[in-house]
Amino acid sequence: MKNCRTDLAIEAADLYNKNPDEVKKIDGVTVETDEIKGIKITHVEITNKNGEEAIGKKQGNYITIESPKIRDNDEDAIAATSQILADKLREILHLNKKSTVLAVGLGNWNVTPDALGPKVVSNLKVTRHLFEYVPEHIDENTRSVCAVSPGVLGITGIETSEIIKGITDMVKPDVIIAIDALASRKTNRISTTIQIADTGITPGSGIGNKRKGLDKDYLGVPVIAIGVPTVVDAATVANDAIELLIENIKMLSDKNSAMNKLADSFDIEHRYPLIKEVLTPYVGDLIVTPKEVDGIIEEVSLIIADAINDALFGSKAG
Amino acid sequence: MKNCRTDLAIEAADLYNKNPDEVKKIDGVTVETDEIKGIKITHVEITNKNGEEAIGKKQGNYITIESPKIRDNDEDAIAATSQILADKLREILHLNKKSTVLAVGLGNWNVTPDALGPKVVSNLKVTRHLFEYVPEHIDENTRSVCAVSPGVLGITGIETSEIIKGITDMVKPDVIIAIDALASRKTNRISTTIQIADTGITPGSGIGNKRKGLDKDYLGVPVIAIGVPTVVDAATVANDAIELLIENIKMLSDKNSAMNKLADSFDIEHRYPLIKEVLTPYVGDLIVTPKEVDGIIEEVSLIIADAINDALFGSKAG
Amino acid sequence: MKNCRTDLAIEAADLYNKNPDEVKKIDGVTVETDEIKGIKITHVEITNKNGEEAIGKKQGNYITIESPKIRDNDEDAIAATSQILADKLREILHLNKKSTVLAVGLGNWNVTPDALGPKVVSNLKVTRHLFEYVPEHIDENTRSVCAVSPGVLGITGIETSEIIKGITDMVKPDVIIAIDALASRKTNRISTTIQIADTGITPGSGIGNKRKGLDKDYLGVPVIAIGVPTVVDAATVANDAIELLIENIKMLSDKNSAMNKLADSFDIEHRYPLIKEVLTPYVGDLIVTPKEVDGIIEEVSLIIADAINDALFGSKAG
Amino acid sequence: MKNCRTDLAIEAADLYNKNPDEVKKIDGVTVETDEIKGIKITHVEITNKNGEEAIGKKQGNYITIESPKIRDNDEDAIAATSQILADKLREILHLNKKSTVLAVGLGNWNVTPDALGPKVVSNLKVTRHLFEYVPEHIDENTRSVCAVSPGVLGITGIETSEIIKGITDMVKPDVIIAIDALASRKTNRISTTIQIADTGITPGSGIGNKRKGLDKDYLGVPVIAIGVPTVVDAATVANDAIELLIENIKMLSDKNSAMNKLADSFDIEHRYPLIKEVLTPYVGDLIVTPKEVDGIIEEVSLIIADAINDALFGSKAG
Repeated sequence: MKNCRTDLAIEAADLYNKNPDEVKKIDGVTVETDEIKGIKITHVEITNKNGEEAIGKKQGNYITIESPKIRDNDEDAIAATSQILADKLREILHLNKKSTVLAVGLGNWNVTPDALGPKVVSNLKVTRHLFEYVPEHIDENTRSVCAVSPGVLGITGIETSEIIKGITDMVKPDVIIAIDALASRKTNRISTTIQIADTGITPGSGIGNKRKGLDKDYLGVPVIAIGVPTVVDAATVANDAIELLIENIKMLSDKNSAMNKLADSFDIEHRYPLIKEVLTPYVGDLIVTPKEVDGIIEEVSLIIADAINDALFGSKAG
Repeated sequence: MKNCRTDLAIEAADLYNKNPDEVKKIDGVTVETDEIKGIKITHVEITNKNGEEAIGKKQGNYITIESPKIRDNDEDAIAATSQILADKLREILHLNKKSTVLAVGLGNWNVTPDALGPKVVSNLKVTRHLFEYVPEHIDENTRSVCAVSPGVLGITGIETSEIIKGITDMVKPDVIIAIDALASRKTNRISTTIQIADTGITPGSGIGNKRKGLDKDYLGVPVIAIGVPTVVDAATVANDAIELLIENIKMLSDKNSAMNKLADSFDIEHRYPLIKEVLTPYVGDLIVTPKEVDGIIEEVSLIIADAINDALFGSKAG
Repeated sequence: MKNCRTDLAIEAADLYNKNPDEVKKIDGVTVETDEIKGIKITHVEITNKNGEEAIGKKQGNYITIESPKIRDNDEDAIAATSQILADKLREILHLNKKSTVLAVGLGNWNVTPDALGPKVVSNLKVTRHLFEYVPEHIDENTRSVCAVSPGVLGITGIETSEIIKGITDMVKPDVIIAIDALASRKTNRISTTIQIADTGITPGSGIGNKRKGLDKDYLGVPVIAIGVPTVVDAATVANDAIELLIENIKMLSDKNSAMNKLADSFDIEHRYPLIKEVLTPYVGDLIVTPKEVDGIIEEVSLIIADAINDALFGSKAG
Repeated sequence: MKNCRTDLAIEAADLYNKNPDEVKKIDGVTVETDEIKGIKITHVEITNKNGEEAIGKKQGNYITIESPKIRDNDEDAIAATSQILADKLREILHLNKKSTVLAVGLGNWNVTPDALGPKVVSNLKVTRHLFEYVPEHIDENTRSVCAVSPGVLGITGIETSEIIKGITDMVKPDVIIAIDALASRKTNRISTTIQIADTGITPGSGIGNKRKGLDKDYLGVPVIAIGVPTVVDAATVANDAIELLIENIKMLSDKNSAMNKLADSFDIEHRYPLIKEVLTPYVGDLIVTPKEVDGIIEEVSLIIADAINDALFGSKAG
């Protein structure tokens, strides 16, 4: 759960507000969308520097799966989402039979909405040790999978990327799958949007700017990141409420009126003191979650673990 | 964790916005305030019908302990708060040596911010069974204490007050202490304000209006309620942000201007659609909590359990 | 988890050591056995005083389901066991459409092998409150089910049967289903044997002899008990080892030799000091469990919850 | 929790059965004993090859703290034990102010009696990250401490020693403190004996014989191991019962009688089939623990965490 306001590429790129036809025309960006059983799939590929600058993300593939019915515990939606995630993972992983996979559950297991990664990892099928200890029980289709939940800086005193670098150097996996809980800008994404990216996890600015990325540059191995929003910043909710009121005021007043100008004057910089006053003394650490977040994290972690097991072994064994 | 916007008498009565000197003049209301080591104690007593109507609460005693330094894990503040709570409990309980006490931990143990009551109860010293099974090990100063965590309606299918009524009829306690997590209107109250009331817990309106109260009327035994805010409704945060912006707009515009009137037009009824849009599709169930709510609940439940053990036994044994 | 050495009727009656043909001839006892997919089902019915004395149990039905493959996580065995348990429950419950059921999860949720009952209850479908609050969402086939986990005497200070009596008087169910973890005499029964009895739970001797039973006599409602062994007393293991050695010595020596007599002299009374020495200073509280007991309890509680949901609603919804 | 029958040096060396005066005479072994407030401290140092062979352990220091009153929750005993452990750790660690310490919580957090290590680590004060992020808040007496709980082979698919090797290579600590739950031969040692060794943790024989040790040879850094017995093998209990019976039979019969010889014939090899029959079908995985093991692990992990925090920071902050 990073401190930035959004961890979702689809939000960062603001692909919704932009006209999709315009986005498709950008040199260095391809966008494909699909819809299966009410589940929307958006695949953005950024192929050159121009695309990087236009979208504001590193070159690579970003797949977003939006499945709002998961929230209602709709069994068909859950099965279909897991299936789509498995298929997309297979595409983006393109493993061969001998590939070793290291799964990494990021986040703090003591903080409910941040425990998604460790919970997914606890439901993964782990096989790497069997090759050494009981090779006679391994059939030729079994892949070598290992998995860790490294904890977070405040618990270990060690950068997560350092821990993973150390383990990677010992295990020498062919690919890393990192699972993380994200912050979103929109409450309706909580537990219903899944993002896959093959560019790893690049730490944000601010406090994180000394941090090493969980990516190929640092680890020497491709990193596939799977993320699910589990919270929205409380500041985001306050900001959205203010923004919406301003929009409404502007709609209701003449374009050049003093009122309209006053509304305009509450730009992000001038909104911040208001938000701060509403949330004092917490601001940064206040999060918005569904009341039932404990149960939601449980449910979503099973969907993701099933999909990873399926992608790696062609089965859902937990 | 009830669905109403605030469970705190001090907020309901809006004692802060009213001039304390004026409140003191109301017939049927007495207010005493005290401050010990930076901890503010407000004791409101409502003594007649007129007071009930003026404040909007049942006749009885309402004690609020505000201890903001708890949040910083300040050990002195924690010890002092626990001590004050123990003292106030002793005052309001006025037990004799033979009194039997039933402690009730309200709330849902599967929902972190609602688990306060069950967690407190799990740290209480329980002695009632010793009187029957090992009377030789009971000294004359030991009080008979028993404790239950009845769960919530959605888990049991039974009204909490019915469960407690059934147990009360069997156990015949002299007083009930009920511990509950509350919703507050202000984020700065989360985990730092403790409310004691000797009027029990009266269910709110709306869905709860068929519900029987956890109070002397229904149970036949006085009910001392201890509550701590652990969440703020997300809708409250959105509403507060809008309200603050409106106030700012009004301050910045002429009193009789169109702008001022427009701002005025966003009264609570007209704000609601905006709030709903910001929080869609969640509205009612979205809560705002500190990110570290798991640890905070743990900490506060120990403070309260220590205070209750102290009030009942004169010791802090868990 | 009671302190007596065995809670299983099938062990108490020692039906295995007796010749089944002889048991069947006892007046007041009927025995039926069945085997489905490797799962053994024994149905003992005791119909009169003579049967009670011969078997040492109250008049009523005792059904034992032995499913050793559950231990290996065999999915077919798990599904078949759950199905058989659901069928047997339907037979023994003979509910009509309007019957209200109260499920009771006995045991201490803080002690892993004793947490079976509460874990089962947490996976049951609960509907009783829906009849009052959302009657429009209830179809005619929905049964009214409610459920509690009352805790244990050491946690609450209240006899479990008193708590259940109080709740029963309020809720007025037509039948109670009580789920409990048992102690067995044989390690191979741990988590693989399920016992159903329609005689409720009668507390043992010793410390429990003042206790009121969880049965129709005290509660006024039939009580169906479901039990699963999760531990063996450590003293039982020590005793079994000694017994086996004595048997071996006797086999290896002449029937009338001094050796044979010496071996005979280590009857249960003379074995006890040896057992005590081996287990000092624990004796009564030392238990034997599989190392993976946490996972086993999780698994078995799902099997039982599925079966109860199936028996009550004709579905497995959790 | 390793699979061998005992992890305690004091038991391996069988120092109790040997005459202490004789042990002290062995070349290459020194034994010092002390007793403080009823807590027995035994310090065995093995200084050369001859000592290694005589005792059957690697050269190094082995300190055993035996504190039986911990079991009764005696607060004085708990405080004194924690103090002694802190003092002995300081002696054996001999850190300077600039030393960085890596604490490692060994064991499986999903298996209650094996969760001791991770639980200790979760209560340690961690500071290493503060040096980089908030150096202004670090005073000169603060030591750099980091901590991980690597999980177990069956969960991660990676040898624990490999994970620690990888992290050690990144973090470059001056010393590692590894905390582990042990198996003991005697039930009375459960949760009351603490062992410190400066030789690390050397994996046993059998399945572990391919494993790399958690020691200076492999990691390049001294490893201080802290271990507490939390279980006894069920096979050990069965064996002890048989052994005791044989002793009794021999005492009761003439030295050269057939009976005495028969008893002798049940040596360890001939006892094994009996033990196997008693414990079938479990044998290796059945453990003996106090029924309240969940609470005991909680309690002991706090004692050890307090002692480590005290040894590293001169304070007990959690």
